Order: sequence, then C-alpha cells, then structure tokens
Amino acid sequence: MNQEEEKRAAPCSSSVFVNNPHLDVMKEDVLYHFGLGTATHDLPARFGDVKFVCVGGSPWRMKSFTEYIAAEISMEDPESEYPNICAGTDRYAMYKVGPVLSVSHGMGIPSIAIMLHELIKLLHHAHCQDVTIIRIGTSGGIGLKPGTVVVTKQSMDATFLPKFEQVILGKTVVRNTDLDQCLAEELLQCSNELNQFETVIGNTMCTLDFYEGQARLDGAFCSYTEKDKQEYLKKASEAGICNIEMESSVFAAMCKLSGLRAAVVCVTLLDRLKGDQLGGSHEVLHSYQLRPQILVGNYIKKQLKAKAGRS
Amino acid sequence: MNQEEEKRAAPCSSSVFVNNPHLDVMKEDVLYHFGLGTATHDLPARFGDVKFVCVGGSPWRMKSFTEYIAAEISMEDPESEYPNICAGTDRYAMYKVGPVLSVSHGMGIPSIAIMLHELIKLLHHAHCQDVTIIRIGTSGGIGLKPGTVVVTKQSMDATFLPKFEQVILGKTVVRNTDLDQCLAEELLQCSNELNQFETVIGNTMCTLDFYEGQARLDGAFCSYTEKDKQEYLKKASEAGICNIEMESSVFAAMCKLSGLRAAVVCVTLLDRLKGDQLGGSHEVLHSYQLRPQILVGNYIKKQLKAKAGRS
Repeated sequence: MNQEEEKRAAPCSSSVFVNNPHLDVMKEDVLYHFGLGTATHDLPARFGDVKFVCVGGSPWRMKSFTEYIAAEISMEDPESEYPNICAGTDRYAMYKVGPVLSVSHGMGIPSIAIMLHELIKLLHHAHCQDVTIIRIGTSGGIGLKPGTVVVTKQSMDATFLPKFEQVILGKTVVRNTDLDQCLAEELLQCSNELNQFETVIGNTMCTLDFYEGQARLDGAFCSYTEKDKQEYLKKASEAGICNIEMESSVFAAMCKLSGLRAAVVCVTLLDRLKGDQLGGSHEVLHSYQLRPQILVGNYIKKQLKAKAGRS
Repeated sequence: MNQEEEKRAAPCSSSVFVNNPHLDVMKEDVLYHFGLGTATHDLPARFGDVKFVCVGGSPWRMKSFTEYIAAEISMEDPESEYPNICAGTDRYAMYKVGPVLSVSHGMGIPSIAIMLHELIKLLHHAHCQDVTIIRIGTSGGIGLKPGTVVVTKQSMDATFLPKFEQVILGKTVVRNTDLDQCLAEELLQCSNELNQFETVIGNTMCTLDFYEGQARLDGAFCSYTEKDKQEYLKKASEAGICNIEMESSVFAAMCKLSGLRAAVVCVTLLDRLKGDQLGGSHEVLHSYQLRPQILVGNYIKKQLKAKAGRS
C-alpha cells in the first residue's frame, strides 16, 4: 500500500483534510473568499491550535457566538473587539478565540460549499489536528414546538434520500451525508444536562430553495395547494425528517470526505405544519436563535475541561 | 377568459410580478430576509417609484454602486449616507437612490432565489410598473482577456443546456432561462459608446459550486486532471459559453416568470483556460469589478434622460 492508498484507507484519521494532489505543486494557495493565503499569512501560527470550528449563516450570529464562547471558556478579553479575520472581503466573516474558530457561510449549499473548500484547505495548511466542526443554524420544524433544537441524524434531499449530488465536469456524483453519530449523542446528552430547552435527534431535509423548494405557500410563485403542501410535509415526517434547512447535505458530505468530526445543530423557528411565515416577535425569534449557541458553547466548554483534566 | 387566465396569457405585461393566489388572502406579508413587511412598512410609498433594480453578490459592491449611480444621475446628496434599508437583518443589504434600487444577493442560486422571491413580492406590493432588473457580477472567463465584460445571451447549466431545474414538492420542474435580448443589445451598444473596456454578448454557465462544479484544480478535493478540465472547458466554449458564475440561471428563470425585463452583466476576473486562482493584485481586480457598474450606470442614465426628454 503506497502513501496515497494509505491516506484513502483511513479517511477518518485526525489530520486528513484535503484530497487534491494538485495542491502539493502550487507555489501559493490564495483562499480568495476569505482574503487569506499561504504566501501572505502564516496560517500554522494563526490557526494551528484550532480544535473547534462553528459555522452559521449570519455574520452577526457568528460574532455573537464568539463573544459568548469567549465568556464560556473564560478567555474573554474586555479590551478585545474580536476583529473579523476576513475583514478584507465581505463574502464571509471569521472570528477566533483560543481553540474556537467561528465562520459565517451565507445561505444555501453553494455559499457554504465555497466556504468549506477554503476552510478545509485552511485547516490543512495550518496543520490542525482533531478538529470538530458544528453548524449552528435555524430551520423550519415539522410537527415540533417552535424553539425545539434538532441535532441532525442524517441529512436528506427533497426526495427524502440521504445523499448529496455534486456535479463534476458536468456529471453527477452522489455523496454520502453521514454525520458523526457519537457527536450527535454527546450533544443531546449535553442538552439534557443543561435542561433549558428541548432537543431531539432527527433527520434534516436540505433544500436548494426556501419557498417552492420547501413547499411554502408564501413565495412569489406557488402552483400547489395547502393540501399538496401538507401531504408533502407528512411524507417528509414519515421519513423521519424533523426539520428543513439549506446547508446540511453538502456540509455533511464535505466534512465526511475530509475526515472532520461533524454535527448540525439547528433550532426550529416555526412549525411548518401550522404556517410558513416567520412573523414571530423579534425577541422570541432571537431567543430561539441563541439555543444552538448555548448548547454548542456548553459542549465545547465540557470538552476543553475534560481535556485539561487529562493533561 | 377570466381575470386569472388573462394574467397568465400576458406574462410579460409590465406589472405582473407574482403568480401566487395564496398571497391575496394573507393579511400580512413578512419579507423576512429583508426585515420588511406589508404591515410594518408603507411599501408603495417607499418603493413605488422604482424603475431599475441592480443586484450583485457583495453588499459592499451594492453600496458602492448606489453611490456611483447617485452621482451619475445627479441625485447625490452629500449629506446622505445611503442607509441600508435592510439594516434589521444581515442576510441582504438594500439601498435606494431615486428610481434605482440596489440589492445584494450573496453567493449561489439558493441565496439569490430567496432574495428574488422577496424582491418580486416587494415590487408587487409596492405596485411598481415597467421595472428593469440587472445582475452586475463577477465571473470566470473562457478564452477572454481578463476584464472583459460579458452580457449574457442565455444562461446554461453544467451540461450546457439552457435550463434551470427547480424542485417543487420533491419533483423537478424545468424552467426557461431566456433573458431579454433587446436589453442585452442595448447594453452592448452602450458599452461600445463608452469605449472604456471590451464587452461581448455570450452564453453564461451557471453552476452550484465554485471549485469541483467549475472544474477548478485548487479546491479541497479534486479527482480529475488538468487535461480533463481543459476538455470540459473546451466543450463549454463550443456551446457558446463565454463565462461561468453561480446565479444567472435562477435569476433568468424567476425574472421571466414574473415579467421583469432582465439582463446579466458580469466581468471576467481571470481566463479559466490559463488558471484557477484569483490571485491578481487587489487594485486590478477592483478596477475590473467596477466595469459592470460603469456600464449599467451609464445605461440607466441614458434611459432616464430619454424618458425625461419624452415627458
């Protein structure tokens, strides 16, 4: 078995991130959408200690997560403003506090995929080891009380199949969307200990569209009835789908390919069986959005404590 | 022919934007990702005069476009900061100066689709008439000198077909990606008059991914060779494809469905036959990014002058 085969045979080893022979012969790698690069930034010095990466759609939420986690792990610096590491671009925002990196990814599969390609290369160039990555997001629930947090078991497509289709050179390649089941169980356990809000483990449907793609009746176009919508969501529910969002499938697929320990933790902002519009009060929606942060913040704190105890 | 049939028979009439009977019975419509709504904002008063909408990926670029267009159409207000109309959310940024609305859409089909659903509903609620919408963006060129501006003739998918596939209730619906050919010719004519940079009309390939989906060799994963890449791009070129980006297909499809006069104007930042990385100097890349703004700004100025002359 040569080195390349060995690498492929152990896709879950703790430092296998990239799988691209072309990168080895590049003099320089520009991570364009981060405004970072191997020739312009000392990536091992700046990112080599990263153990946890949290990603979410909104740049504001990822900044607020950084402030929250800094206090949780007692690394807050009252003098610090937590500067945006990607300040040279407005495509993504990135913050770091100790071993925790926080990155925004925008909305939808293409947007998070660009970010993940560059993040995975960043972790590779920085020689990071044993990295856990968690998406903290928002979603529409199916039959759950709004505010319930869902830890994803499997990410499914709009036909309720656990797969992600990647088009390469015009041909469709099907990728596995498995997530780390141990990590999901640990997160559920953590939520039970916290006992602040309900958390469940369930399947998550990942769609390419928020309106027609999620059977909403309130988009600019709609050619189906309330009954059609309810039937579709009922079938989704029968496939074990608890919530719907727009990034989990490619997130699961890319993390699996790069050997990252990955989980998806999304709060449900509404019950889609009862409506489509996100019209709740700003305060209530905001408090729901904090829940994945609180859960994942607590999980990271616990892990770091356990690690400190072992060393 | 009843009213509904009449509406469908004239899909290009100047004020048909939405096609969703459910909207008529909603007491209130919350445009969630804009932080606007029919119950909280007087949309006709604030947006009723909109005649041009320019959209682009980056919020910074759309703000800078607003400042540019304000000066071009002599509506600049030295006191004004052009406040972000969507300041209550960080999903999109929106600016308005006179009849020109400028909105960011993030990266990729799902992100621009969410924005377009809410924009089309906004134009509908505001009773706008005769609206022209233009996407100003960046792209990778095929066989063009970097900095060339491409006005899209047809938007094609990764198999070089002029279609957009929308999944509705788990089933794939194929939509037409035709753009307004007169508008494209007018924009080309406008660029010829300006004579500042080269502009061509050609097909644009729209992909769901920036790395593997566009045959790049510099992503986190790559399973093909430089030769495979060149062959794929050569085939694209033979199908009349001049550039590659990530939003034009759903943009064309949704604008066509809603009767908006639409064009896509993207500058090419590099020639993909010669490389993959966006490593040019910041100044050069920035000057290229201004070109679609300059062209579209000039076009709008010309249209407004012609209209003022007629009235």
